[in-house]
Amino acid sequence: MREIVEFLSARNLLDKLFLRQLLLDKVDDTLVIVIIYFLIMLQYKVRFLPLGGVVGVTKNMYVYEIYEGDVLKDILIVDCGMGFPEANELGVDLVIPDISYLEDKVDKIRALLFSHGHEDHIGAVPFYYEKLGKPPIYTSKLTALFITNKAREFSQNVNITQIDYAHDYRFGEFDVRFINVTHSIPDTTHILIKTPVGAFYHGPDFKFDLTPPYGSPPNFYEIVKAGHDGILCLLSDSLGSEREGLTLSESVVGQTFEDEMRKTKGKFFMTTFSSNISRIRQCVEAAIKFNRKIFFLGRSMKQNTDAAGDIGYLPIPYALTGKEDEVMQIPPNKVCLIVAGSQGQYDSALSKIARNQNPNIRIKSGDKVIFSSDPIPGNEDAVYALIEDLSLQGADVIYSDIQDQLHASGHGSQEDLKFLMRFTNPKYFIPIGGTIRHQRQYRKLAVDLGYQKEQLFMLDEGDTVWFTKNEARKGDTLITRNIYVDAYGVGDVGNIVLRDRQTLSSEGMVVAMVVVDKMGKLIIRPKILTRGFVFEKGEDKLFDDAVKLIEKILKPRNERLLELGSLKKELGREVESFFFKARGRRPLVMVEVIQI
Amino acid sequence: MREIVEFLSARNLLDKLFLRQLLLDKVDDTLVIVIIYFLIMLQYKVRFLPLGGVVGVTKNMYVYEIYEGDVLKDILIVDCGMGFPEANELGVDLVIPDISYLEDKVDKIRALLFSHGHEDHIGAVPFYYEKLGKPPIYTSKLTALFITNKAREFSQNVNITQIDYAHDYRFGEFDVRFINVTHSIPDTTHILIKTPVGAFYHGPDFKFDLTPPYGSPPNFYEIVKAGHDGILCLLSDSLGSEREGLTLSESVVGQTFEDEMRKTKGKFFMTTFSSNISRIRQCVEAAIKFNRKIFFLGRSMKQNTDAAGDIGYLPIPYALTGKEDEVMQIPPNKVCLIVAGSQGQYDSALSKIARNQNPNIRIKSGDKVIFSSDPIPGNEDAVYALIEDLSLQGADVIYSDIQDQLHASGHGSQEDLKFLMRFTNPKYFIPIGGTIRHQRQYRKLAVDLGYQKEQLFMLDEGDTVWFTKNEARKGDTLITRNIYVDAYGVGDVGNIVLRDRQTLSSEGMVVAMVVVDKMGKLIIRPKILTRGFVFEKGEDKLFDDAVKLIEKILKPRNERLLELGSLKKELGREVESFFFKARGRRPLVMVEVIQI
Repeated sequence: MREIVEFLSARNLLDKLFLRQLLLDKVDDTLVIVIIYFLIMLQYKVRFLPLGGVVGVTKNMYVYEIYEGDVLKDILIVDCGMGFPEANELGVDLVIPDISYLEDKVDKIRALLFSHGHEDHIGAVPFYYEKLGKPPIYTSKLTALFITNKAREFSQNVNITQIDYAHDYRFGEFDVRFINVTHSIPDTTHILIKTPVGAFYHGPDFKFDLTPPYGSPPNFYEIVKAGHDGILCLLSDSLGSEREGLTLSESVVGQTFEDEMRKTKGKFFMTTFSSNISRIRQCVEAAIKFNRKIFFLGRSMKQNTDAAGDIGYLPIPYALTGKEDEVMQIPPNKVCLIVAGSQGQYDSALSKIARNQNPNIRIKSGDKVIFSSDPIPGNEDAVYALIEDLSLQGADVIYSDIQDQLHASGHGSQEDLKFLMRFTNPKYFIPIGGTIRHQRQYRKLAVDLGYQKEQLFMLDEGDTVWFTKNEARKGDTLITRNIYVDAYGVGDVGNIVLRDRQTLSSEGMVVAMVVVDKMGKLIIRPKILTRGFVFEKGEDKLFDDAVKLIEKILKPRNERLLELGSLKKELGREVESFFFKARGRRPLVMVEVIQI
Repeated sequence: MREIVEFLSARNLLDKLFLRQLLLDKVDDTLVIVIIYFLIMLQYKVRFLPLGGVVGVTKNMYVYEIYEGDVLKDILIVDCGMGFPEANELGVDLVIPDISYLEDKVDKIRALLFSHGHEDHIGAVPFYYEKLGKPPIYTSKLTALFITNKAREFSQNVNITQIDYAHDYRFGEFDVRFINVTHSIPDTTHILIKTPVGAFYHGPDFKFDLTPPYGSPPNFYEIVKAGHDGILCLLSDSLGSEREGLTLSESVVGQTFEDEMRKTKGKFFMTTFSSNISRIRQCVEAAIKFNRKIFFLGRSMKQNTDAAGDIGYLPIPYALTGKEDEVMQIPPNKVCLIVAGSQGQYDSALSKIARNQNPNIRIKSGDKVIFSSDPIPGNEDAVYALIEDLSLQGADVIYSDIQDQLHASGHGSQEDLKFLMRFTNPKYFIPIGGTIRHQRQYRKLAVDLGYQKEQLFMLDEGDTVWFTKNEARKGDTLITRNIYVDAYGVGDVGNIVLRDRQTLSSEGMVVAMVVVDKMGKLIIRPKILTRGFVFEKGEDKLFDDAVKLIEKILKPRNERLLELGSLKKELGREVESFFFKARGRRPLVMVEVIQI
């Protein structure tokens, strides 16, 4: 009996195994072994918690926690990205995940893993690396380089290890293995995360590209073997779940570049995400074939292509690249410009050219501009305005609405997603990297494959799922908010104003003013002001209910009222959620708590 | 030294291993181990030989031989099918593979394996099972049942074992494992054949159906694991190599049946291959949903659905099926007829109905006929004539030219085929089950994936490929001919005549008459007669060349001339090949050798 007590109170698995051995030496009884096995297993729990990347697509950040009983033992974090892809080019007004939940648990964070090098998966590192207690980072080659460069811009050093695909990594009680897959950037990985309650297949952004222009095809053996060994939960990219069929191979785009370059008598412009190194490399190879000198324009484009060049992922003879001020001095049919700004960002290199604000580069008739990326939902207006401007300047603009094979999505379509389901055959599913619409469609695919709706969790930010051996259930929802980053580094106030005006113009704003005394007691009735949100006349009841909600939140918590920060946060979240439920919109919510 | 001689002359691998142990006990030297290893391996050779199924698509039969030095040790045969799918319904005029090469080697045949239950893979069993020395047959459940029933029709018993997917079978030096895949018939398999020189992935007819309506999805783990362990040669279905994308899942057809049945006020006819049990089952389930009584028409249709019902693959409540003479007695919108004859065969159940020759069944306005199978190349005219006849009788006929989702091919398209290439990642490729056109397109896919043209063998019937450890080269071509089977069992002379007339009308005929003396010496110049082949006027040179060819063949072989049978065979083959090369057509060639 004493041994069993000692056993159950042992702090980690190794102790337990040791004690189990001691026990077994004394009582050689199969029943005891079975009981102890279940005691060990039943005691472990894993909690999964997305801090971003669900519903909003971007700012991906996922937390895995291992509990022994109720004691949090180990935390593993996958990705730490920013909202608005390419927003770094704008330099201002980013959204990053809310990591306040983690702040008092940094001593449990065993590692920070990254799936691939896109901004929406790595962009928040400079803001959070220190706050997270500088955990060791593990990721693939190109991703490691991108993160190191990004950190260096912020004068930070990161503790980063370039992973070996054939190696199993142990972080606390997590066993981790990276799996090579394909996407629109080289060195994209999926991550197999084994825990005491079961294995998680963390499968963000991917497509099954059987003919990737560079790098290896997906490692089907590792994927299928993971499935064969048993997957408790598959976390899968869901962004392409509305598209039928298989996503086109990245390599179809190379042929299109060649065809278009052949037909173009003037300058050839290509714009895409600056991290899409495979796409850029295909354009570079076509340019070399047609003897066009290559110019990279835009800060992120230069940085990323430099970085990729350094590790041999983008080999270009030095003589074939040029500087901006040479462009107009060589014949236009000898020029290929690879330009940042495919999402219509206001101050991007391409937008400046379109507005005729680049002193070195003029668009002339005969020039061609190829958009080799689709607008991200929400950016359509800006992209179409940019296309309009470029056309006005005389360029022939080609984009995916008028030409199919300009952009092969980096995200798997329905058949890619179904293959991954079949390969891994999990007990549970969590679609990630998509909006609610994509999650729903993903669920439909799973049902088509014979799974039950109940096997799939559709999560919002801050939602949690508890996993025990062979079982999963939804847990409490943690409070998370959008964290806005205003102008870091080379900020431009004009753009902040512009962006704010955009947000306000689409969703409006709500300000809640709360005045309390030193004891945290409401002194006056909370006051709510709005602009551009709903037509206020006839909405008295709506605002009345909002006020009542604030009063209700304040009432039972008089004791802790002095923590103004967390109170503001909670009120903000509740008010935001209240208006979203009531009117289906997300105005900019500001809560001001004044203590007098 | 004596040991090494003894070693090399040891007759089988076990002896060798034993002797190697003896050797090693004496000289403990790594070099010796390495040398011996290579001596063992270099001695083994495997020869692959298609007796059908290449170029001609149907009458699939593949021979694997293991040689130790020059001594043939073991033969394994995969499939033994007939030409003209569904030809068994006609009962006459089949084409079956030429197995004369095997006739003096039956004692080496270790097993006869079948990949699935389609006629073009199993149909020649009754003709050859005894000639092959009654080897043990191994195959999946439904296939075993179909073969057993077929043999029973011919009053034969077959020694058949229903395979277990989790089991490794050993046949001589062959190690065999069956892998569950998907096609248009349940229980379709691929076969992993391990030999001393390497592993062969024998992958005939398949598609990767992620949502098969019945049965399991493909066992990706076994496929990918085979690839991971190393594949020397992939033998892959190539029939769908011209179609882009992935082949549709069989389950899309079920929805189409329901939609069409809902719209149909009259009788509902569906025709497809009688072995396509999954398709038939989907139609049956739709009929049950719409309260239509089910009638099976046609001998093969009744047989196959009975067989599938017996093993639970086609469960239908007895009360829901009816006999032909009831059809006109119940309301037309309560009738569903599942009818053989989708290829337009002249005396099939459907053709008889179309010609108004079935006393029990009349087509009326409002009736609908669904063709849920595409015409096999060569059958188009017959199928369109049948559609015409049915329409004339007043039926609304739906076929895949006018409705896309009536027939999901059972064969993988380009992406299915590329997935299989990636999964197995072989050193060599042999496309099977397709014409030269398909083989070429398949090679293009392999090249797209980065393989070399030289890694792929495009074979014709009788061609051979020799495999040694890590290497392959094309060997001699064996002489094979089409073997025609005239009217077996319930023959109908009218149809033989009809079929002959069809062949003659499309390709014409050539008769070569050769008269020799007792010594085999030509007495007169060979004479060639033709009808319907080429316009003879102005073709003097062609026939002159053909005569010279015959003279040339006869000249150097005077010694063996008395074997008239094999001489006729060889002459036939050479003449056929000569005219095909000269004019691109394959007339019916008959060679008559008269000895006086």
